[in-house]
Amino acid sequence: MAFLRPFLLFCLISVSFAHEAFDSHLLPRPLILEFPQKVENQLEELDGEIKLRCDSWRFNAEANNLSPWRRIPLECAEYVKEYSSGRAYQLDVETASKEAEIFAKSVKLVGDGKDVWIFDIDETLLSNLPYYTEHGYGSDVFNPLEFDNWVQKATAPALLPSLKLYKELLDLGFKVVLLTGRSESQREVTTQNLIDAGYYGWERLILRTPDDQGKLAVFFKSEKRSEMENEGYRIIGNSGDQWSDLLGTSVSLRSFKLPNAMYYIS
Amino acid sequence: MAFLRPFLLFCLISVSFAHEAFDSHLLPRPLILEFPQKVENQLEELDGEIKLRCDSWRFNAEANNLSPWRRIPLECAEYVKEYSSGRAYQLDVETASKEAEIFAKSVKLVGDGKDVWIFDIDETLLSNLPYYTEHGYGSDVFNPLEFDNWVQKATAPALLPSLKLYKELLDLGFKVVLLTGRSESQREVTTQNLIDAGYYGWERLILRTPDDQGKLAVFFKSEKRSEMENEGYRIIGNSGDQWSDLLGTSVSLRSFKLPNAMYYIS
Repeated sequence: MAFLRPFLLFCLISVSFAHEAFDSHLLPRPLILEFPQKVENQLEELDGEIKLRCDSWRFNAEANNLSPWRRIPLECAEYVKEYSSGRAYQLDVETASKEAEIFAKSVKLVGDGKDVWIFDIDETLLSNLPYYTEHGYGSDVFNPLEFDNWVQKATAPALLPSLKLYKELLDLGFKVVLLTGRSESQREVTTQNLIDAGYYGWERLILRTPDDQGKLAVFFKSEKRSEMENEGYRIIGNSGDQWSDLLGTSVSLRSFKLPNAMYYIS
Repeated sequence: MAFLRPFLLFCLISVSFAHEAFDSHLLPRPLILEFPQKVENQLEELDGEIKLRCDSWRFNAEANNLSPWRRIPLECAEYVKEYSSGRAYQLDVETASKEAEIFAKSVKLVGDGKDVWIFDIDETLLSNLPYYTEHGYGSDVFNPLEFDNWVQKATAPALLPSLKLYKELLDLGFKVVLLTGRSESQREVTTQNLIDAGYYGWERLILRTPDDQGKLAVFFKSEKRSEMENEGYRIIGNSGDQWSDLLGTSVSLRSFKLPNAMYYIS
């Protein structure tokens, strides 16, 4: 919104001055002083309208009504930046994690080491916000090479509410399985990054093997959950920022959709 | 938020005046004039904080992270009223329906009369906003008798974006099935209400028989979808304001979650 202001201010001021030129000799001078207020009001209305439309876009994106969406609407780039870099996003993650914790505590575990909670990694356990901050918060075209370079640095911080939930789940006796669309070749840096961010004691870290490349995430993850079920695991909970982490087959008893207004994965 | 203002204003003004009494003899009088601005700023901050928390509650409710939620948080009663009675709700319904239309147009129908789109009724085809306007927009305890009296009036208006989608689907050649938690005893008033609101030409209207009473909506609706599949219908799309309209078994190829911040049905 903010980046549009200079341009819109210029347009509106142009109109205002055009009007002034037209009949300024008829008007007492102080009346001209009203234009900046009018311009300001019009800008506020425009901001309000864009906010409303982007709120609606985000609701529909999060409700999986836009599946698949490839790009943030141009008019919502600034909105997504403000949301993702601000407190609203953090609060959304926090609320989702708290609800997951309430649910986890309500479950009576069998306690045979087969009660499982699945976590996705990117934008679930680890935050790539430092990367997206430098790449338009998802409004730039995705560059897989640059993103891989970022992954290689292994410096993504934890999403703190997820870290809290993760530790709580281990304390409650859940086995934690990490199921990610990252590739097997990134196992080492991913493990290092997770440990540095405070994660430990997972049961299994499942990444895409060469055979899994090219599969839609929703199929790849469903397959892996199905394999776990065949091994006797009971998938109680599942936390992920993408619907493709949560939907499909062999779904968990309850799932928790973390927010992500920056990108969508099928 | 607005209803808290008089109370908070009183509290903050009390504090302000307490402060003034304490050292008013030390301060030049004009300084006191700054307090109302400060009070206004504090109220704005409080409004902003409540808005942020209620936005987060709504995101999590719509993402099905709070399943089941029984009551709107007390602090969000005013927020839900503003949202549900305002343009934001209408825009959310409109966006969801437009996306459904885009999807529907992308599907190549077999054309044997078995391509189905399912619609829920309440808060999907028909709006009970006139009822909820009189009942705290969902923050009052639900009164089934009063709600049944409202249903008997058969005056619920159409959600206009749903009506538009509905007509478009018929034009495209879909068979439309209405699947509702309303009871069989309400068939006549429901039919009358739908016709008066502009709906026509549905393939089937499925309501709860006495045998279905007491079943969770998600099971009742899954059962009915499964029966339809066994009859050879292909369930292409499904529009509903509750996750229990959309999840379960025999799910549609694509589903569209309409917003509802007023109540939740399991």
